[in-house]
Amino acid sequence: MTFISNHKQKIISSYISATVSSHPKLEKHPTLPLVYQKNRNPHQVPILSGGGSGHEPAHIGYVGEGMLTAAIYGQLFTPPTRTEILESIRFLNNGHGVFIIVKNFEADIKEFSSAINTARKEGIKVGYSLAHDDISIEPHNRFQIRGRGLAGTILLHKILGFAAQNGTDIEQLTDLGHQLAPEIATIGFATKSASLPQTTLPLFSLEEGNISYGIGIHGEEGYRIVPFQSSEILANEIISKLRLHYHWKNGDQFILLVNNLGTTTNLEMGIFINDLLQLLEIEGVTITFIKSGTFMTSLDMAGISVTLCPVKNKQWLEALNAPTTAFAW
Amino acid sequence: MTFISNHKQKIISSYISATVSSHPKLEKHPTLPLVYQKNRNPHQVPILSGGGSGHEPAHIGYVGEGMLTAAIYGQLFTPPTRTEILESIRFLNNGHGVFIIVKNFEADIKEFSSAINTARKEGIKVGYSLAHDDISIEPHNRFQIRGRGLAGTILLHKILGFAAQNGTDIEQLTDLGHQLAPEIATIGFATKSASLPQTTLPLFSLEEGNISYGIGIHGEEGYRIVPFQSSEILANEIISKLRLHYHWKNGDQFILLVNNLGTTTNLEMGIFINDLLQLLEIEGVTITFIKSGTFMTSLDMAGISVTLCPVKNKQWLEALNAPTTAFAW
Repeated sequence: MTFISNHKQKIISSYISATVSSHPKLEKHPTLPLVYQKNRNPHQVPILSGGGSGHEPAHIGYVGEGMLTAAIYGQLFTPPTRTEILESIRFLNNGHGVFIIVKNFEADIKEFSSAINTARKEGIKVGYSLAHDDISIEPHNRFQIRGRGLAGTILLHKILGFAAQNGTDIEQLTDLGHQLAPEIATIGFATKSASLPQTTLPLFSLEEGNISYGIGIHGEEGYRIVPFQSSEILANEIISKLRLHYHWKNGDQFILLVNNLGTTTNLEMGIFINDLLQLLEIEGVTITFIKSGTFMTSLDMAGISVTLCPVKNKQWLEALNAPTTAFAW
Repeated sequence: MTFISNHKQKIISSYISATVSSHPKLEKHPTLPLVYQKNRNPHQVPILSGGGSGHEPAHIGYVGEGMLTAAIYGQLFTPPTRTEILESIRFLNNGHGVFIIVKNFEADIKEFSSAINTARKEGIKVGYSLAHDDISIEPHNRFQIRGRGLAGTILLHKILGFAAQNGTDIEQLTDLGHQLAPEIATIGFATKSASLPQTTLPLFSLEEGNISYGIGIHGEEGYRIVPFQSSEILANEIISKLRLHYHWKNGDQFILLVNNLGTTTNLEMGIFINDLLQLLEIEGVTITFIKSGTFMTSLDMAGISVTLCPVKNKQWLEALNAPTTAFAW
């Protein structure tokens, strides 16, 4: 049972209000669905990200010095409108323009690109980066990689956020996004589907004791359902997909982000990560940065996603290791 | 479903191993069930806490500069043995003695007090503080307050850890613990019981759609089961118990810690915190420090606990606001 059933009309506003109350460095815009750093650095390009809600602590948890300047949110699994995005761009622009990190979903791209185009016509410099780290395949077309924006988006937030904090301009941020985004790969599994309290949107069905590989974060079904056998077998399937994607060689260096998709327990996370690290060691892959936690969820879904990114630039590591005031990093 | 069923013999060791791998500042003792700061400050009294596992990220998540020096853990819901605790005290003692924070459970007190007595006989100075923040009542004896150590323990970790870092000696730490521990009060509710993968320990039964008030963190049943109606009603019951405990006056200042007991979603946490803060405002209580997150869990239980502590000393706030490298604070 979730106890949000009696709050259908104010699920998100309650969450935002509580989050801002709990984090004194955050501020909610009086009319827009926008949360931002109370003390914004006027000398840097502001970084905006966001999308539908239901992925908490994304994206509000990444608002802070050295990460996002602001996060915009829509209703559950529904992006903010183009008007809300446009007004947020106008609000955030401090003369340096605005840089936006968007997750690759059709609905998100529609709203964000429309707002970006209008803002540019108004003379505001707007750059963006598209997160498309999902390497899972369509269940009904096995040659089609889905390329959605998943937990790998958080690496973009941290690395681009650090660059912006250090005075990188919009053109350079755009370049950095182009270098970084295609390197990031994410794949995961669910042990329990998310349940949407508000609509009849069909989320995938998954019987008790089964696993779905390659699920999305909006209830999209995975590419295969199998009975659960062991955590090692889960890790093995995930590693085999990542190996196919990267064709890594012995000694290759990677950044690793392991993400709790919602209601996985810390013990389960630990057991899976342990199996994952053992397999990566056997593969000869070196993990030079590791982060695990709850970063990009899908409501009450239980499951884990694994994100890798090869260390093609030492500055990416410097950015990931830098401090931030964002509460969910 | 949890996917730890095939790991019965190594649930905890896998979790510890993964956690240490993910946090380079932590180190696992080669033979003892002990995790500690790799670079320990030789000039401060080391602070040790711990108990049974199943409460992750406690207590390992609080090991770090300004908080715990080390955490010791037993199997699921079972404290470490007196021998393991004693050897850990010997290992940690750097000439300043060792200060221990223990949660008030009969089994824990037996093991810890035996180890403390032996260490003292060996000439090691050992101080301790007992967390007994639980203000719920026994279901079969309504005049008996249970006084177990719950999420309020984390406030002891932070405030005593900060004091130790700043050179406070064992006598002063003991005094501070005596001032602080009785001020802290915790009460919570569950929407779903925990399931123990390893033994047949009877956890409480709770039907779908019902709430149990005053649950413990080892499957102890609460004082009342009622059908879920709304988040406001939950918050109202919690506030009424805390009001009875504190008899607060208008303008009284409190520290607030809201704890996810396991698999509550971030959205649910937000909705509940929002209701809680509104009620506290109506009560005229001022919250001068607020922290919410997953601090002290009970496996996969769903539910929330609320901890308050009156601000009787401004230094407590300074301690809570100080930085720490502990990953779960």
